[in-house]
Formats: sequence, structure tokens, C-alpha cells
Amino acid sequence: MSYFSSDFKLGILGGGQLGKMLLQETRKWDIQTKVMDASSEAPCKIACNTFVIGDLLDFDAVYNFANDVDVLTIEIENVNLDALEKLEDEGKKVYPPTKALRIIQNKAKQKLFYIDNGIPTADFHRFAYKSEIEDSIANGGLHFPFIWKAARFGYDGQGVKVVRKLEDLEGLPTGECIAEDLIPFKNELAVIVSRSVSGEIKTYPVVEMEFHPEANQVEYVICPARIEPKVAQKAQEIALKVSEKIQHVGLLAVEMFQTQDDKILVNEVAPRPHNSGHYSIEASYTNQFEQHLRAILGLPLGCTDSKVAGIMVNLVGAEGYTGDVVYEHMEDILKLEGVTPHIYGKRQTRPFRKMGHVTIVNQDIAKAREIAQMVKETIKVISK
Amino acid sequence: MSYFSSDFKLGILGGGQLGKMLLQETRKWDIQTKVMDASSEAPCKIACNTFVIGDLLDFDAVYNFANDVDVLTIEIENVNLDALEKLEDEGKKVYPPTKALRIIQNKAKQKLFYIDNGIPTADFHRFAYKSEIEDSIANGGLHFPFIWKAARFGYDGQGVKVVRKLEDLEGLPTGECIAEDLIPFKNELAVIVSRSVSGEIKTYPVVEMEFHPEANQVEYVICPARIEPKVAQKAQEIALKVSEKIQHVGLLAVEMFQTQDDKILVNEVAPRPHNSGHYSIEASYTNQFEQHLRAILGLPLGCTDSKVAGIMVNLVGAEGYTGDVVYEHMEDILKLEGVTPHIYGKRQTRPFRKMGHVTIVNQDIAKAREIAQMVKETIKVISK
Repeated sequence: MSYFSSDFKLGILGGGQLGKMLLQETRKWDIQTKVMDASSEAPCKIACNTFVIGDLLDFDAVYNFANDVDVLTIEIENVNLDALEKLEDEGKKVYPPTKALRIIQNKAKQKLFYIDNGIPTADFHRFAYKSEIEDSIANGGLHFPFIWKAARFGYDGQGVKVVRKLEDLEGLPTGECIAEDLIPFKNELAVIVSRSVSGEIKTYPVVEMEFHPEANQVEYVICPARIEPKVAQKAQEIALKVSEKIQHVGLLAVEMFQTQDDKILVNEVAPRPHNSGHYSIEASYTNQFEQHLRAILGLPLGCTDSKVAGIMVNLVGAEGYTGDVVYEHMEDILKLEGVTPHIYGKRQTRPFRKMGHVTIVNQDIAKAREIAQMVKETIKVISK
Repeated sequence: MSYFSSDFKLGILGGGQLGKMLLQETRKWDIQTKVMDASSEAPCKIACNTFVIGDLLDFDAVYNFANDVDVLTIEIENVNLDALEKLEDEGKKVYPPTKALRIIQNKAKQKLFYIDNGIPTADFHRFAYKSEIEDSIANGGLHFPFIWKAARFGYDGQGVKVVRKLEDLEGLPTGECIAEDLIPFKNELAVIVSRSVSGEIKTYPVVEMEFHPEANQVEYVICPARIEPKVAQKAQEIALKVSEKIQHVGLLAVEMFQTQDDKILVNEVAPRPHNSGHYSIEASYTNQFEQHLRAILGLPLGCTDSKVAGIMVNLVGAEGYTGDVVYEHMEDILKLEGVTPHIYGKRQTRPFRKMGHVTIVNQDIAKAREIAQMVKETIKVISK
């Protein structure tokens, strides 16, 4: 059966912005799609062939959704894995495979996986309940500062917090979590590895997250990373090792720290298209969404080289604005060279919600960086 | 009112492949869309917000379709112009404007427009009926060979025929037509000019149509054209002149002949995204579909430069095959570097029907040309 025929149907769990950009590629190849999301206003609602409203964490919803799809994939890892496993057992093609998702979905398991496989990562402690953290601090087993991470359901910066004193733990969820050493890193890097059903592997170039000097927030994702070639090579090698050990199918975004003494530590991974790869839509020969499709459909992987340098700026809701979204000064950024906004189609903005992103491409990375700063300083996501 | 808000609605007349690729860009910016096409299986049926089945040449269908859209555009010029004119008179934003469409829709009028405005074009005769051609030949007013063109409704190679002897006229439509001198051209070139509501103008690079040496059929659209800079400059100047005189809004694709003595003659124009600009999706900083949107929405025009060289190969139905389409050897071309197929989503193939296209991009145009040839020789559009 050909993927490029009306007999084939791809199922996608999750209807957010990643699914939306994946759908763009399915339209390019006229691949039939079916999407499930809990929200009737999900960005994926149009541009798929069938849209189903359903809870991604509900066994029956996921299991029943998949009965008439030929290949099932995800755009978010928080889905019901027991349903995926049953589908796999029945012969359904589920990519990434449930086994890889089980490792990734729980951050404590993910960390243990790194240890078991000799993959460098920051030291950490695992706790079944938040209350155990307090005991550990009292007993001298854990010291400030550290990073608290919820073991499950963290997303878009939620589920992660820097803890410098006891009071910082107040209000956090009480369940399973980890406490991780705070790494004073030189750079935060990421590498996206694509691995196809047939085992073919290709990595994208190393990208760099540039942080705001004061706010400690990622401002720019820059490709290629402005780092020494030997550091880039090490990052690539470690990303490939994670990919090989985790046996994913599709994309694996590997986020890493470059420490002050140029060690590479794996922070966390995502088994799907990723924010750090959005630049690829405009900059790469094969964008990450097309590559994910190629990988899960068992097609040959595309070239991951860049045509030009690419920088990505997230469009997040401005503080102090909640309600019907307005993109202020959009026309001003459209005047700048090589600037492409992507609007995800979420109707409501709220502080720090990811509403879109803007890509800046240029032959000259320094010029791209200048324009990116103008974009960042100009556009504002507010409400009516 | 912002275009990037749910209050705004763009109407598109025609739901074919050009509309489909235009819709891709509206999805990128989350612009609300409404599309009309006569076919319930039109490629645009998904990915728009509202799809209406209707006859594009019917006054009431077009007029009623547009009542709740803010801006109305076309993806095909064969639409009911009286309805557009009435809408314009009532204050609706119709781009391209009806006046430009009236000149372009009728090829005899289009030729007279070139003459009236001093735009170089091949000599021609205009006939109200095909029977007048026979009279003219009999009286020595017209000589073989010449190109017969129907004044209206020609599309995708239909409505055009080289006439070398009287019998070649048999079976052709009997209505208004022109007979044009057959130009023994060195190259067929095209320039896409974008012109926004505010009058801002940007041209894309000159592209070249490379013909099959025997079959006299366009095989490759190549950007940039492999011609002398002074010829390219002349082509650009003439395209700009046509654009200025015709006062379109949106894109204007100007097809031209480069004669043996390096004169440029305008062949014909299309006031919309065009097959000769498909390469821009992968090769240009701003692709033609995004540029059309920018132009008709009055946004700043984007950069028309190329990141890399681009070559486009049309995927047309192979001779001898009619029925449910199959894209044979798709996986083989996906192995080649910088190759992106676009499948339009038409269910049925027939000989020479445009079913998709493939873009090949590369830093090196000669390498791109080699790969394009491999693509052309590999993929086949057949039926089950």
C-alpha cells in the first residue's frame, strides 16, 4: 500500500501546534489524516481529514481512535501508553514505539535510563513524593540549590522549578519528582536525530539556545550553534548514542548542557518534532516535520543540511494580557528581510502561552541575529 | 481589523492546486478562509474554514459566495467578472481587480492591450469565429504555420494549437480566437511580479523553461534562468512594464519568449500564483503564495531572492493511464538530495493532467539539473 494514496490513513494523537505543522506536510503529500485532541478549538481541527474530540490519557479514547488508522504517531508524549501497547501487540504500527515513550514520559525513568546506558547527565535524586524532598534536605542528603522536576506531565516550562530555599517548594504538585543538580552551563544545545522504521539515521545540526541575560528565559534558537566544532561533534555523538539506545522511530530532540569545562550533559529528550527544530521549515533542505513523516512511514530520510542560517523566536503571550489574541506590530516585522511568522491559531492568549514563532533566515548568521533582535523587540502578543 | 484575527475572512474563487498551496500559507498565518469550486473533490476542500460548491462562471454563485468575505481573490481567472465588478462597486476588496481580469481573461483583448501599451509581443490576427481563419488563409491574409489560441477558457495547454496545415484546424472550438506568429524562440522565460494594494512592487528572478528536445513540451522550470544578465534585465523591465500598465494587485506571472536575436516578446500573463513560481516554495526567501497573500492583504512584500537554485518538474499523468492515481517510484526520488514532491490530491489521473510537481534545490544549479533529470526519468504518474 502506498502512503500517497487514499487507502492510507495516518493517525495523530494531539492537535496542537506541532500537529498543525505536521499536518502541513501531510497536505503537501496528500496523506490522509485523523487527529484526536481534547479541545474542539485545537489548531489541528482544520487541515486534517477527520478530527475527533477525545482525552489523550483515556485508554478507550486512544484505543478506539486508532482502529482505522494504518500508522499512529503523536505530537505530545502525554498519551495513554497502555492503549498504545495493546495496539502494538495487535500489530498496529505505533511510532515512536511505546517502549521508547515509557522511558521518556516519566522523567525519573528517563534519568535512570541515562545512567543505565552510560549517557552523561546531571546528578539527581528520585522521590516518590514531594514530602520526601523535605526529609532529604533535613537529613543533609540534598542541598540547595537544585532543580525540581515533576516526573510526569511537565510541558512548556510547567513542572520545572529552580529551588533555592525551602519556601520555593510551596505550591508544587506533591507527586513523584526528581531533584537535579543545577548546572552552571555555558550553553544549552539541542540536536534532533531522525531514525526511520528501517533504521536509517540522520542528525540535524547542533542548535544553540540563547538566553536573555537577566530573565533566564530562552530568547533565540540559533542554527548552527556558535560553538567550537569539537563541542558540536561531541553533542552529535551523544545525541546519536541516546537515539541508538532508546530505539525510537521518528524524531528525537535531545536537549543538552555544555558545561563550563565543555562537558556535554543530556538534559531531556522529546520523541517528536520539537520547538528547537522549527527553524528548519525555512532553513533546512528537509524540515523536521517532513522528516518525521519520512521516518515513521519508512521513507528515505531527507537531507538535514541548512540552506541558510536560521534563528527562531517564540511568540509567547505577553504578561498582563489574557483573552482574544492580537498580534501587535506584525506588519513591522514583515518588512524585515527573511522573516516568516507562524501563527498557531490559538484564539486565547495568556501570559507565556506559546502562540506562534517567527523564523529569521539569512546567509549571514550575524545579520540574522540582528534581525531576530529587531523582531523580538517589535512584535507583541496581547489581547483585545 | 487585523488579518491575523478570527474577524477576518479571505475568499478564494477556485479550489485547485494553486488554491491548495495558497491555503498552506493561510494556515501558517491562521487566516480564516472560504473557498468555492465546482467540484466536491477539489484539492482545497480540506484546509479551508468553509468550502462551498459552486460554478465560478455563474453570477449568483460568485456574488453570493462573497457576501461575508473581507477580501476576495482568485486562483483561476475564469470566473464571472460581472459579479466581481458588482462586488467591487459595492466596496468589496477584489484582488486582482476586475479591470485587470477583463484584459487578461480574453486573449484577444490581452494582445490588443500589449499593442496599445507598446509592449513587445508576437504579431497576431484576431477572429470572431474560427471560420474567419479559413477565409483569411484563402485570401492570403494569413499564412502557415501559426498558433491558434481560443480567446477564452484556455487552460493547461488546452485552447492552444500549432497550425501547420488546414486540417490542423479540424475539431477546434468555433468561437473567438487569435492566430499568432510562430516564434522560433531561443528560450521561454517568465518573471513573476508582485504588486501590493499599497503599490509596492517586487519581481522574482527570471526563470527559464527547458523544453524536451523532441517532444516540444516544457520539462523543467529553472531558477535562475541560465541566460545573459542583459537579457534577464530586459525581461525584468518588460515584466515590470506589463505590471505597471495592467494595474493588478497580487502576483502577475509574465511569460515571454527570448527570440533568436535576443528580443523579448510577451507571450501571455496570469494574474495569480503560477506554475513557473512553484520552485519558490523551497528556493525563495518568500514563496509566491505567501507573496500573493502579502500583496492582496496590503502587507509589506517579502524578499524575492533565492536561498539556493531551484528546478521544478511537473508531475503529469502518463499517457495510457486513466483512473485512480498511483505515484510510481516515489520512494526512489525521495532518496535524492534536495527533492521535495508536492502531490495535489486529485484522485483520478488522465494523460497530461497536472497531478503534482517536484522541486529540486541545490547550491549548485548544474547539480540540481542532474538530479532533476533523474527525478523526471524515475517517477511515473499512472493508474491502479
